[in-house]
Formats: sequence, C-alpha cells, structure tokens
Amino acid sequence: MKAIVKEHPGKGLSIREIPVPVIGTTEVLIRVKAAGICGTDAHIYDWDHWAEGRIKPPLVLGHEFAGEVIEIGREVRGVTLGQIVSAEGHLACGHCVLCRTGQGHICRDMKIIGVDVDGAFAEFVKMPATNLWPIPPEVPMEVAAIHDPLGNAFHTVLGGPGCIAGQTVLVLGCGPIGCMAVAVARAAGATRVIASEVNPLRRRLATTMGAHSVVDPREEDLASVVGAATEGLGADLVCEMSGHPDAIRQATRLVRNGGRIHLLGLPKDDVALDLSGTVIFKGVTVYGVIGRRMYETWTQMSAFLKAGLIDIRPVITHRFPFGEFESGIEAIKSGQAGKVILLMS
Amino acid sequence: MKAIVKEHPGKGLSIREIPVPVIGTTEVLIRVKAAGICGTDAHIYDWDHWAEGRIKPPLVLGHEFAGEVIEIGREVRGVTLGQIVSAEGHLACGHCVLCRTGQGHICRDMKIIGVDVDGAFAEFVKMPATNLWPIPPEVPMEVAAIHDPLGNAFHTVLGGPGCIAGQTVLVLGCGPIGCMAVAVARAAGATRVIASEVNPLRRRLATTMGAHSVVDPREEDLASVVGAATEGLGADLVCEMSGHPDAIRQATRLVRNGGRIHLLGLPKDDVALDLSGTVIFKGVTVYGVIGRRMYETWTQMSAFLKAGLIDIRPVITHRFPFGEFESGIEAIKSGQAGKVILLMS
Amino acid sequence: MKAIVKEHPGKGLSIREIPVPVIGTTEVLIRVKAAGICGTDAHIYDWDHWAEGRIKPPLVLGHEFAGEVIEIGREVRGVTLGQIVSAEGHLACGHCVLCRTGQGHICRDMKIIGVDVDGAFAEFVKMPATNLWPIPPEVPMEVAAIHDPLGNAFHTVLGGPGCIAGQTVLVLGCGPIGCMAVAVARAAGATRVIASEVNPLRRRLATTMGAHSVVDPREEDLASVVGAATEGLGADLVCEMSGHPDAIRQATRLVRNGGRIHLLGLPKDDVALDLSGTVIFKGVTVYGVIGRRMYETWTQMSAFLKAGLIDIRPVITHRFPFGEFESGIEAIKSGQAGKVILLMS
Amino acid sequence: MKAIVKEHPGKGLSIREIPVPVIGTTEVLIRVKAAGICGTDAHIYDWDHWAEGRIKPPLVLGHEFAGEVIEIGREVRGVTLGQIVSAEGHLACGHCVLCRTGQGHICRDMKIIGVDVDGAFAEFVKMPATNLWPIPPEVPMEVAAIHDPLGNAFHTVLGGPGCIAGQTVLVLGCGPIGCMAVAVARAAGATRVIASEVNPLRRRLATTMGAHSVVDPREEDLASVVGAATEGLGADLVCEMSGHPDAIRQATRLVRNGGRIHLLGLPKDDVALDLSGTVIFKGVTVYGVIGRRMYETWTQMSAFLKAGLIDIRPVITHRFPFGEFESGIEAIKSGQAGKVILLMS
Repeated sequence: MKAIVKEHPGKGLSIREIPVPVIGTTEVLIRVKAAGICGTDAHIYDWDHWAEGRIKPPLVLGHEFAGEVIEIGREVRGVTLGQIVSAEGHLACGHCVLCRTGQGHICRDMKIIGVDVDGAFAEFVKMPATNLWPIPPEVPMEVAAIHDPLGNAFHTVLGGPGCIAGQTVLVLGCGPIGCMAVAVARAAGATRVIASEVNPLRRRLATTMGAHSVVDPREEDLASVVGAATEGLGADLVCEMSGHPDAIRQATRLVRNGGRIHLLGLPKDDVALDLSGTVIFKGVTVYGVIGRRMYETWTQMSAFLKAGLIDIRPVITHRFPFGEFESGIEAIKSGQAGKVILLMS
Repeated sequence: MKAIVKEHPGKGLSIREIPVPVIGTTEVLIRVKAAGICGTDAHIYDWDHWAEGRIKPPLVLGHEFAGEVIEIGREVRGVTLGQIVSAEGHLACGHCVLCRTGQGHICRDMKIIGVDVDGAFAEFVKMPATNLWPIPPEVPMEVAAIHDPLGNAFHTVLGGPGCIAGQTVLVLGCGPIGCMAVAVARAAGATRVIASEVNPLRRRLATTMGAHSVVDPREEDLASVVGAATEGLGADLVCEMSGHPDAIRQATRLVRNGGRIHLLGLPKDDVALDLSGTVIFKGVTVYGVIGRRMYETWTQMSAFLKAGLIDIRPVITHRFPFGEFESGIEAIKSGQAGKVILLMS
Repeated sequence: MKAIVKEHPGKGLSIREIPVPVIGTTEVLIRVKAAGICGTDAHIYDWDHWAEGRIKPPLVLGHEFAGEVIEIGREVRGVTLGQIVSAEGHLACGHCVLCRTGQGHICRDMKIIGVDVDGAFAEFVKMPATNLWPIPPEVPMEVAAIHDPLGNAFHTVLGGPGCIAGQTVLVLGCGPIGCMAVAVARAAGATRVIASEVNPLRRRLATTMGAHSVVDPREEDLASVVGAATEGLGADLVCEMSGHPDAIRQATRLVRNGGRIHLLGLPKDDVALDLSGTVIFKGVTVYGVIGRRMYETWTQMSAFLKAGLIDIRPVITHRFPFGEFESGIEAIKSGQAGKVILLMS
Repeated sequence: MKAIVKEHPGKGLSIREIPVPVIGTTEVLIRVKAAGICGTDAHIYDWDHWAEGRIKPPLVLGHEFAGEVIEIGREVRGVTLGQIVSAEGHLACGHCVLCRTGQGHICRDMKIIGVDVDGAFAEFVKMPATNLWPIPPEVPMEVAAIHDPLGNAFHTVLGGPGCIAGQTVLVLGCGPIGCMAVAVARAAGATRVIASEVNPLRRRLATTMGAHSVVDPREEDLASVVGAATEGLGADLVCEMSGHPDAIRQATRLVRNGGRIHLLGLPKDDVALDLSGTVIFKGVTVYGVIGRRMYETWTQMSAFLKAGLIDIRPVITHRFPFGEFESGIEAIKSGQAGKVILLMS
C-alpha cells in the first residue's frame, strides 16, 4: 500500500509502498478515506527538536482519520465490515491503574499512532478494536476525519467539573482547535465567547464559528474587552490553545478569581508565571488538557454532531488528494489555513 | 396601600387597604410593578389541606414580583433608589450552618414571603437587602417578575453536578416552570429535549419553547419515544415538574442507568416507588429541588437573560391589572393558562 | 471438579462433580481458596420469588472469592501464574456506552457470576482477565475472598461526590456490609458514626468496627440520638444497608437538609415515601448503590487494606470447609452470623 | 488599650496605648485572649518589599486570634456576651458576585485584619459579626487562636473536589501549616503521607503529626521515596506549603498523571514551569489556595477538633506574654520554631 513515511531522521516525508498491516485478534483493519494534517505532522516533517527526541523512523505519519472497516480480528465484538469509523489515536495500555479507573487518556504507557507507532497517512491502518469510534451517516467523512482535534476542543471547553452554561469563555489562539472550541462553547450555553488571535484568517474563522468578540491582541487591549464583558471580574474559563508564553500569562491575568484555565497549547520552553498574584491569591484552577477522555469526550462530541449543535466544516479550509500532502504541510506552515484534509482516493 | 389579603381561614382573597410596611435598617422598600401568580397562590385561595396547615391569616399573598426601590435601610450598601429589582422570596436566617456554608436555599429556619410573612401582591413590599436581585434594562418587567419560577427551572435543569450539554433531557409536566425548563435545557446544549404533558395548551407552549418532541402520554407511549431517542438507554436527566405519582414513577423507569432525576413537582401524598428495580440496580441519583441556590442560580439566570439565550415571554399567556386578580386565579385553575402576571398600576 | 450447584428449580443445593471450566483467550482459570457466602446465596438456596425469576439451573453458585491463577488465556497481559487474586464478579459487556464511559458497574448487559453464569463455589472458576484484582501478600486470603461485599461498603460510604471527613454518617442495618461500612466511614474521617440495628450480635460487631453510637431502634429513639449528635441538623450521609421500608423512610427523615442517602439494601416491594416533605423540601440527594465502581472502588479498597486503615476480620464470624456449606447457609439464615467464609481445601 | 503597632514605614513594631475600637451596629468587640504570630507578621516587622507595597501605617498587627465577646452591635443576632470565639480575618465585602455565590474567600474587595485594617495584637479587636466563629469548650484557647492557619491547612488538604481517603499525599514544606496539613491528611484517611522539609526541627514536628515518611530533600531523593510509595505513579495530591520555586517544580514532577497540586506557599518571584511536560501531558490540576472557604472550611475544622481527630498542640513550640512579642518574632525568624503564640494577660 501507499503511505506517507518519515524514512530517516531529518527533514521531509516521502510516499512509499509498504506492506498492508497485519491485524491481531483484537484489532481491526481500516481503509482510510480521509485524514487531517496536524501541526504535529508539520513538526515531524521539519524534524524539529521535539521530533528529533521522540520520533523513531521509519514511521508512517497521521493520527487524525476516518475510514471503512475491512477486516476484523477474531476476538473483536461489536464491529461490522463496511462500518465507517474514526478512532482514538492514543493507544492506552488498558492495564495500569489509570486505565482501570477511567483515566486512560493519561495512561502511563501511552502510544500515539503516527508518533510512536505507524499511523493513518496510508491506504490502510490497523487499530485496536477498543479505540474505534462509529460514525453515523449524518456526519460527513471529512468531519469524521478530524474527531481527534475536535475532541481536544471538547475536552478543553467542557473538561471541567462544572457547566459553562451562562459563563464567559475566553479562547486564546484560534488555530483549528481554538475555532472548534469557540463553536463548542457557544453550543454549550456560554453567554459570552471572546477569542484572541493575531492571524486575520483565523480571526475570520473564529467569527464564523460564533465568537461574540474576536480580538487582535496587538491592536486591541484584550484585558479591556474581557473587563467590559464581565464587569471587571474576568473570564470564568480561559481556554489556552496557543502554547505561547505570553498568552499563558495573559490567561492567568484575565481569568476571574476562582475561575479556571484549561491549557491545551504546548509551550516549547519553561514558562515563568506569577503564581502568587495570578493563581494563588485569585484561587484559580489550572488544568492540563491532554487528548480526549476515553470515551466521555467522544460520546459528547458525537451527541453534538448528531444533533447538529455544531458545524465545524467552515474550519476546514483546504482539501488535498493524498499525493499532494506536501501542499497540505505547506498550507499549515503558511499560517493561511484552518484545518487541512487529505483525501485518500 | 392596597394589598391582596387572605383575611381569615377559608376560601377566597380580598383587596384591602393596609399600612405600608416599615423597613428595618437592613431592609429595602419596593414599589411593586408586576407580580406572577403561582399555583401556590391558587391553593391558598382555595384554602386546601396544605394551606390550612401552613398559612396564618391575615397574610398578604405573592412571592413572585419585580419593582422599584423607593426606600433603603440605613445599614444597606450597594442598592440605589429607583433601581429595578426582583428578589429571592425565600428568607434564609443567615446564621445556621447551612446558611453559612452556601446552602441558604435549605436554611433550617426559612420563611417565604406570601406564605409565612407578608408578600408582594401589594403596592409596596419590604425585603431584606440581601435578597434583592438587580434587573438590567434589557430584561422586561414581566420577566423580572417571574425570576422566582424561572429560577426553579434553572435549578431543576442545571442543579446537578455536571453539564447537560450533549445530553437527553426529559421534562415531565409542562406547566410554566416545565416550559421554562425546556428553554433552559435547549440553551444549555441538551441535544434532545423530550416533554410530556396531557394539556394541549401546555404542549403547544412546550413546542414553542423548543422541545424536540412533545408527547401526550395518554396518546403516545413515552417510553418508546425516549427509547427511540436514546438507543434504548433512557434519558440522562429527567426533570419531574408535575408532582404526579405516575410521572414520578415514570421518571424512575425512563431515566438511564446512572442518570439523574430532579424532583421539583410536589406530590400531595406518599409515592410508592420500586426502589430496587428503578433506583438501586440502575445506580440512579434522585435530587430534591427546592427554591433557587442563593445566588448561583440567580447569577446563571441573569447571564442567560442578558445574553438573550432564552426568551420566556411566550410562557406568559395572561396579564391582568391588580384589581382583577380573581380572573388571574381563575385562569390558572382553568388549566388554560401558562404564566399569569398581575400588573400593578 | 467439585462444585456447589443448584441443579433444578426448587429448594436446596448439592455438591456435584462437574468439568473444570475451559478458558477462552482473554480469560483466566483460578483455583479457589476461599469464598464468602452472601445473603443472595441463601435466597437461591431457598428458591424464593426473586431466585425463581432470575436463576436458570443448573448453576454453580458463589460470587465472592479469592484464589490462585493457574491458567492464563493467550491474549491476556499482566497476569502471572500463581498470582493470588480476587475478582469483580459483575461481568460488564465492555462495549456499551456505559462501559465505554467509566460506568461499567451499571452496564446495560451485566452478567453476575454465581447468579447468571457459573460462579466460584467450586474448586476452579474462570474469569475474564479484565475482572481480576491482584491481592498483595499483606491481605489475608479470607479478606481477599470478601472484596465483593467490602467493595459494596466502600461504594456506599465513599461513592458520593464529596468527602465524608468531618461528617456524621448514619448506618442503617449492620449486617456484614453495614459493619464494614462503619469501619470505612471511621477510617475516612467521619467524625460521628451512628449505627442502627435490631440484632444484638450485629450491634456488637458494629461497636467492634468503631461506631461511636450503636442503637437498637426498637429500644432507643434513633431520631434523638442523631439529633443530639448533630445539633438537630440530621446526618450528613445515611447509608441504608437493610432494605427495610421503615429504615428507608427513617433515612429520609434523619438525613439533614441537603444531605445524601445512599441506598444499598434492596427492598422486596415498592416503598412509599413522603417525597415532598423528606426529599424535595429538604433538598436531599438519594443515590442507588449497585456493585462497585470498576475499578475506582477496588483501588480505594486495596489502598485502605494495604495501609492497615481498616481490619474487617472481626466481621467474619464463621469459617466452614467447602463440604459443610449447608452449615454456612444455616448460619446466615439464623441471624447469628456476621460474614461466613467457605474454605476450599 | 495596649496594641502592637506598626507606627511608621520601616523596620520594627511598638507596643502603644490606643483607643479601644468602637463597634458598628453589625459588629462585635472581643477581648483578645491569645493570638498566633504568622510569617506575615515577621515580614511586616522587617518591612520587606511586600510589606512596603501593601501596609499603610499606622496599623495594629495580628490576624490569628481567639477571645471573649464583650460587646455586641444592635443588629447582630446569634452572638452572646462572654462567648469564646475565633474569627475569619478576611473581611469579604458581602456584595460582589463572588460573595453572593459562596466564594467569599476570593471576594474582589477583600480586606484582611492586621494587614489592611487594624488587627488582633491588642487587648481588644472588633469584627463583623458574620466573621465570628464560636469555639466549643473542648477546644483550648491557644488552638482557637490559630484557626486561621489551621483553616489554611484544611483548605489545602481537603479543598479539592474529591476525597483523599485512600490516597498518597505529599506535603512540601513543614512549617506550622505544613505540619497541620500532615495531621489533617492522616485524619481524613490518606493512606500515605510523605513530608519534605530541610529544617530538622520541622521534620521532627512533621513526624510527630503523623507523616509516614519525612524526607530531608537535600539528603534523600524525594522522587525515589514517592516512587517507592506509589509504584512509580506519583502522589495523588501534592500540598505545596513552602513557596520555594524548586519545591513548586518538584510538585509538578512528583504528582501523578491526573493528580492535583494545591499551592499554598507564596513564591516571591515568578516561577518558571515546564507546563508541557509536567502539567499538560500529565493532565494535572493546579489549584491556588487562598484563605479558608467561608465557612465550609471552618465547619469541617470544628468537626475534626470537636471529635478529637487531630491534635495540633505539638505544633505550638513557643508561648510568650503579649509584652514579649519581639521574642516571638525572633523565634519565627530563627527557624527554630513551629507555631508561636502570644498570650494576652
């Protein structure tokens, strides 16, 4: 089969002919129909510092996808041939105390497809049956393909203990996941969604997704916008989707006393924080968002999509055939893209 | 001043001239602009068994209202003359362990205006300053007047520990509070709201308020409707707003394993429940909803109203001048009404 | 192998020679060392109304046990030969939405060993590997054998959303699980544990397990005892372990406003409750306790046992060799027993 | 009356004769019996950078105290002359949205006695009646005097959403509040309490208070100790009581995936954190602990003390008469003290 492969350490990716994966008794083989390109894929393409430390070539990339079940392991139950599925790309061990207590998303021995093991930028991918997520007919294939980042958005917005209905949500960074977060917050009853983003294309997407206010933080004083919307109180929930140290510090300043900050964006280096003034005295809660809760987040996401509560298709700005993946990587790196989809055949 | 008074034990109410209330140093005097008539008022009018046991005439009725602040006690801070306010009609003692730990809505020594002390069916009413709730200009006076029942709806729908976004909510009984509950559930991201009601007028109101399905349980099999909407699982949250024993039992049957039942409707007599089969084996949680959380519910309600997330005006079907309160009582008793408002001057 | 079998509908049980179970690729075979006899086993012995409706003979009884792993299916990971294990006897399907969202204890397609499929009153029992629970050396075999009921006690006492440290806990019914609940509540920082039980032997056991007050509700006014301990407020948490309708009603009366009632005891018939007066007006939460959370409850239970926070051995009043199971059943039915253990060889 | 006063900017404190405070209608006058000296008082004595920015002399110091009610404002209910009380020293405004929704501990307009307004190092102190906390006879005066820091310990250990029973708690920094935290964690059912502290006196106190392991982090590898106690998983809850940047970073490294860090210690400067590696990828929650929940923390603390679940007297190492407050300040600054108490009269 054809696959997009990091063959050797160093920059670049190639399309190669490699054997179709052989499934085990508890696994399933899927013909990939569509896949999302993630910033992570661009990092691996570029072979940056993180990639160099984590990736062991040769490796098939790709962790966001949807496709059709074409082979089913002997011990698998509840999966049918021809079924359209997406899948959780984080492979939890299933045996550690975290996996056994409903915390598989932070499994101690997690492997990620397309990062630690072969992924979905290929004609076929194999997955443990436990990781499959059935896609109903009303969900388009390209939306099915990006359940992974959409799940990050759900986890970031709704992963707290309470309810955001009636609350002010501040989204810092409107890449694809930030834009999806805006939509999720609106649909879940946030009464005020404020988005901050320097890139004009992404600001437009955030507006399309329903943000009440979209701010260019270099042009407008975000603190004033948040203050005006909250009678000076601050945001109930800040979703930090950029990973930028300044945005993270801004999160701690603009969250209200007793509010929550959900960190999804990954800063490259250590971030210096005024913990006394902006976290401790304010009684703030900071939560690190990793992956998607297995499978509470998926259940919630499916319910929203089936009910038509959100439509994330506007976030998809580019679609490329499999063979033109380099253009997809480029689109992401240009900053002139929302979500980029690869279509397999 | 004029007031609607239960003068003596027995049926009926009268308009009487009585002295304007004299406020204490921590109280406020309000000129009433609009008031809601509640089922409770009809019970007191009729002098039913409950009323006979609880009400000590003479008493001014009325616990749902809004108006204008016209006098402010010496120790009061943060209230201004001319301000438009509604108020929490449950007067918590402020001293018991429940009041001191954020549970004032279940204060051990609660008094209710219009039930235990003089209420708001009058030209003027006095309230402890702590109980006032400021009303912003964008909220109409008649909506301000029914924050009490609207708060019951919020407490019922959103009073659980989690989030109803993405969930199926079943509302049993579509009186005014049930209809408001439908709207709150929709705005908070419930993906499926099913309402059950025998009265056709109320079914129409429930539809107007946004229910996905509205069922006459005598004509249609509610269990099938819930089953079809939830792949046989049952409702995540059942809001029981009728107080009817059959509906309460239905709640326990139609809630999903691990789901929640929020009981607001007050059954008159003991209710026989199959606790083993429908609560224990199913791991269900039942929560008794009383009043409104002080003042989390009020804060949430105001946020929804200011953001325009809900519009409850369609629930108001009748408006009467103060002097025609008997027509208001009658409208409620006829079953041909949603919410009934008294307009003072 | 020898097994205790319900061969035909009707009263009684027999020891029979039957084939050793054959394990599948994801299962494990265990040589049973010790097993607990439960009230459920006595019901099946007696062939009461419930048993008649649920049990399909022939069936090997027994759902509480511990033993040694002697054979391991090919797909199983993380289990070793010779390992001492107990096991969750509720076999969740693993595929339904409840299983996939951390609610396997209320799986829609649950099977229970010793009730729906062959159980552990036998020389050998097979279990899905997912259900095994490793037992560390410091936990005695007879304690390992009763992790199932001990887990019920943990789930009942600690299954609420908060923390019982500093709270008053009322335990209604001091059978073995009630007595264990007393110990769990003490170890988790309950400041006052009040137990109610008519049977003198069980009252003694409850005292031994650490209850601050143990009341015979026929001799002493339980309401006064609870009132005196809580300044008239009522208990923060009532653990209802008896299933008796009067005790359930007492739970609703003696719980404080805003408190919780956890129902574990299974009433045989419908129970009539004053929902308005004792649940709704009081803002009470009622939670149905079924099984053990998989595997949060197990994790918590093991931590307590390893740390020596509880010692439940005093609850074990009788130990019989396998062949004398009839004496065990009799001991339970006599009311003159705490927990009864069968020792296999 | 005599009072310990910061008269002018700059180092030092003096005992001065000043007028007895005059109470308002909602306030109470208290004859101070005992008071705790806090690190904060030493900072004000030394007039460090923080003190210079915050304190406006002249000011009576002292925020930890207990005493006897000797005068009661006209509007006050539920307080009696001669009653022994401690008090919450954080004066919440009572009017902001945080105060009105049970979050008074993070009031937007908080004033602290002994910091922003005159405090309790005096013969008499006035307090709003709402802030009083009654002390039962079984609690000694010197323990009553340090309810403020003890409340910090309770808030830090038990302020999370769940239950620490059965969990591993790591306490970083064993000043008086850290030592109290050890005791609270033990009493609430933590199965393993590990304490880290460089000061030998404080390590001895932590051992006395019940820590299972007490580590000098310069001599022993704390990561190994935590790893050995948790099968390499990490601590469920880390209570950071030191404010030291290295300890805070250690907290993020030693907490388990999905665990919680409660920050009480106040770092002086910004702290650089590896948010990606130690918070986000690990799915960790960080909570800033400020003050005490009003009055959930106080209720819980009183319940523990009345039940004898904790005895914090060993943490009190020094007692001085009022006139010798300089020795008290010195004892604290020497590092050779646990809690230091001033006895008035």
